[in-house]
Amino acid sequence: MSFKDATVQEADQALKEAQVAFLSYKNFSGKKKAEFLRAIADEIEALGQELVATAMKETNLPEARIINERGRTTGHCRMFADLVEEGSWLEARVDTGNPNRAPAPKPDLRKMLVPLGPVVVFGAANFPLAYSTAGGDTASALAAGCPVIVKAHPAHAGTSELVAKAIAKAMDKTGMPKGVFQHIHGANFEVGQALVKNSFTKAVGFTGSLAGGKALFDLANQRPEPIPVFAEMSSINPVILLPETLTRNAEKTASTLAGSITLGVGQFCTNPGLILAIEGAGLDQFIKALSSEIEKVVPASMLHQGIADNYSKRLKNALAQKGVKVEGSSTVEGTSAQGRPLVASVSSKEFISNPALAEEVFGPFSLIIRCADLKELNSVISHTHGQLTASIIADESELVNHKSLLNSIIEKAGRLVINGVPTGVEVVAAQNHGGPYPATTDSRFTAVGTDAIKRFVRPVAFQNFPDALLPDELKNSNPLKIWRLFDGEFKK
Amino acid sequence: MSFKDATVQEADQALKEAQVAFLSYKNFSGKKKAEFLRAIADEIEALGQELVATAMKETNLPEARIINERGRTTGHCRMFADLVEEGSWLEARVDTGNPNRAPAPKPDLRKMLVPLGPVVVFGAANFPLAYSTAGGDTASALAAGCPVIVKAHPAHAGTSELVAKAIAKAMDKTGMPKGVFQHIHGANFEVGQALVKNSFTKAVGFTGSLAGGKALFDLANQRPEPIPVFAEMSSINPVILLPETLTRNAEKTASTLAGSITLGVGQFCTNPGLILAIEGAGLDQFIKALSSEIEKVVPASMLHQGIADNYSKRLKNALAQKGVKVEGSSTVEGTSAQGRPLVASVSSKEFISNPALAEEVFGPFSLIIRCADLKELNSVISHTHGQLTASIIADESELVNHKSLLNSIIEKAGRLVINGVPTGVEVVAAQNHGGPYPATTDSRFTAVGTDAIKRFVRPVAFQNFPDALLPDELKNSNPLKIWRLFDGEFKK
Repeated sequence: MSFKDATVQEADQALKEAQVAFLSYKNFSGKKKAEFLRAIADEIEALGQELVATAMKETNLPEARIINERGRTTGHCRMFADLVEEGSWLEARVDTGNPNRAPAPKPDLRKMLVPLGPVVVFGAANFPLAYSTAGGDTASALAAGCPVIVKAHPAHAGTSELVAKAIAKAMDKTGMPKGVFQHIHGANFEVGQALVKNSFTKAVGFTGSLAGGKALFDLANQRPEPIPVFAEMSSINPVILLPETLTRNAEKTASTLAGSITLGVGQFCTNPGLILAIEGAGLDQFIKALSSEIEKVVPASMLHQGIADNYSKRLKNALAQKGVKVEGSSTVEGTSAQGRPLVASVSSKEFISNPALAEEVFGPFSLIIRCADLKELNSVISHTHGQLTASIIADESELVNHKSLLNSIIEKAGRLVINGVPTGVEVVAAQNHGGPYPATTDSRFTAVGTDAIKRFVRPVAFQNFPDALLPDELKNSNPLKIWRLFDGEFKK
Repeated sequence: MSFKDATVQEADQALKEAQVAFLSYKNFSGKKKAEFLRAIADEIEALGQELVATAMKETNLPEARIINERGRTTGHCRMFADLVEEGSWLEARVDTGNPNRAPAPKPDLRKMLVPLGPVVVFGAANFPLAYSTAGGDTASALAAGCPVIVKAHPAHAGTSELVAKAIAKAMDKTGMPKGVFQHIHGANFEVGQALVKNSFTKAVGFTGSLAGGKALFDLANQRPEPIPVFAEMSSINPVILLPETLTRNAEKTASTLAGSITLGVGQFCTNPGLILAIEGAGLDQFIKALSSEIEKVVPASMLHQGIADNYSKRLKNALAQKGVKVEGSSTVEGTSAQGRPLVASVSSKEFISNPALAEEVFGPFSLIIRCADLKELNSVISHTHGQLTASIIADESELVNHKSLLNSIIEKAGRLVINGVPTGVEVVAAQNHGGPYPATTDSRFTAVGTDAIKRFVRPVAFQNFPDALLPDELKNSNPLKIWRLFDGEFKK
């Protein structure tokens, strides 16, 4: 399938329409927005096998994965529908006034979150459904009350087109204003630039490479009116193996990690790209077992040729660094479109002295850092960049003696995992998919879970408003029955 | 008083110490941080008349204002103490796991906010106490668990030094680690630059000019690891006068506004610098009354000579713009160190076509925009930048017919005021002191009120943690009895 790139003029026109839509959509009730989000989920399901087949063809991902991802996509649409229908997410606060206070009367102040305005979303290569057209950025922005313009990822433009049509149907069925959701194709950088630079654009969501995300971040900050960019970019997700537990469970740990490293041909932002352990018999045994697991995994096609080429290039570069030793790789070489699973190792000293080794190699690769001791391991942690996740594989009894490790890895990551792998991102309120730079451009927000909506809203205070002119969320009688901080007390 | 500027090396050393302090301070309980914050308030009060006299001397502000500001400062220290001692501000969320879920087990996920790391605060010229050394930025960052380095404002370095000493005493008395709070002098830009560029710095708070805030924002975004800057910069706080109410209350409105325009020699970020009204007899009467009020106000010394010079220069520039007519000014000319109150008017057509008229003139000045009709008034609003506040003076009956005005001004401001003036910023949970650029660099946060703490924290998720290793806030038994979203339900 091929789609015509939008022109810069078309991109600007889309923002004009989005702004017109915003001025009415922003006032829609949570109930009405919920209907829309649920209709999107229904219409995506109604696309049936055509969507699955198109996504499979465009991304080389297997059917089960696409079906699973579709479930996650409709799932988060319905999750945000529930959230905004219930309404307490708005952080309503009321401080009633006192006209008789001396020396000055105390004003009546009420505050809640309101939408920022039109949001531009760049679809992700590695999630054709869950982080693209109706992905988490789109669903959370629409839930917040922001119109969305999606720039389709050119690698799965057909999938994106189908989902966009489903959203258009949902708009029709639920009476949404024209311009609430728009879909634009554009393989070139100019269209993306125009979307970010347009003065009506008030925020940007992006999932992709560090270079791409940083370029959008810089562009947004150089505007006459800088706007927030939430870019989820680069993470190598360190996994720390503590020695006692490792000695007991070398094989089991190797098998679990091999599965996580090669899951989806390693094309997850939470892929464990760095394994930290202390030298010893346990580590030797683990490396042997992991290598043997990796050797058995057959290479599979990556999302598109560009990603495969990039993997091949970055892998070659990593392996060319001083002291890096290949420990095991798939016995099948595979085609140039495929990602060949591989694990290598290097000493902590080499890792610390060579920043190139801390860079992401997007694909089924992991680098094991052989640390001389716990001090060296700590030093490796301090030399890693910000991450989406950091994991420790250890039993509770061993962990208790390594609390200081928890104290240091928390500074590096947005999610800490005990006795598990970082892949698999549960979509719940307690999820945090974010982290210090370069994992994202703003560690104060999450891209997954209900709190992802907070990226696209800002607080507004209403001072001395007549009750009738207040939004329902802030009226005295609390007609929506939402949780509010009312004169210092949390209540409904 | 004169103080030695810190060197770049001293600034970097301060950040090293702050980072060491951070690694222990971040784990201090809310109760312990509350003790520290309350001790700061006590020690500031213990400075007694020396602090008042020093601040008066350095800023030309009258005694009553300094005493009031001291009350606000100790007030917000105690407010944040209460907030962190209670603990629910941390947005704790718990989603319990299900190991038997198919096809994959559901992990146990728990999330809360954690401090970002060392924060650099630039003291404000116009609030020697409430937005300087122990100001809202410092108090909220310390409450969040972040060490703070304050760069004293050179215009009130002696006041800053006294407050810093009070904080040092509070540190001693409550057993705080060295480096939790540090105070640096520096009249030159290099020291500020070094503080922002240091890799241990994780956030910046600033209150001041657009040029100053934007320079720090750009610097922070150009770091290898960009960091958030919350800069509160420029706002002209439009006040809209609706015609029917104005006709009824021209004199009263003029008197109220004259008080707000000249309060503190106009040196508030919430000063009403723009008054919008529709041409007619009501407006003429209002302008006449306002001019006569302004003529009666005697010029007073501004904060320092630089601010007075800046006011004089910007005022001259505003009055030189096409179509601008002086309506009234203080009959006393005053010295070059004083700010002479002045109001002028211009047609909406001229305002819309001349961006220079939308720029802030920091001081006792306000520009009245004579609008031909409501459409022109709306057009003026759309030509203003982002603001801290927007106000409408009108009775409820007239307001009801102008709901669309509310719908448009909310896009421009962080706080909407009905029948009141923007000056006077109540320190409560429902306050929002922020707004779209250039009012601040991030409209998603407030600088005043309990939510100001949110600028300096980020969420972290804990996956499959043994209960004993979780922070108390997330343990099953909820030992701190805080409000949490537990499996979708808000409860203690």
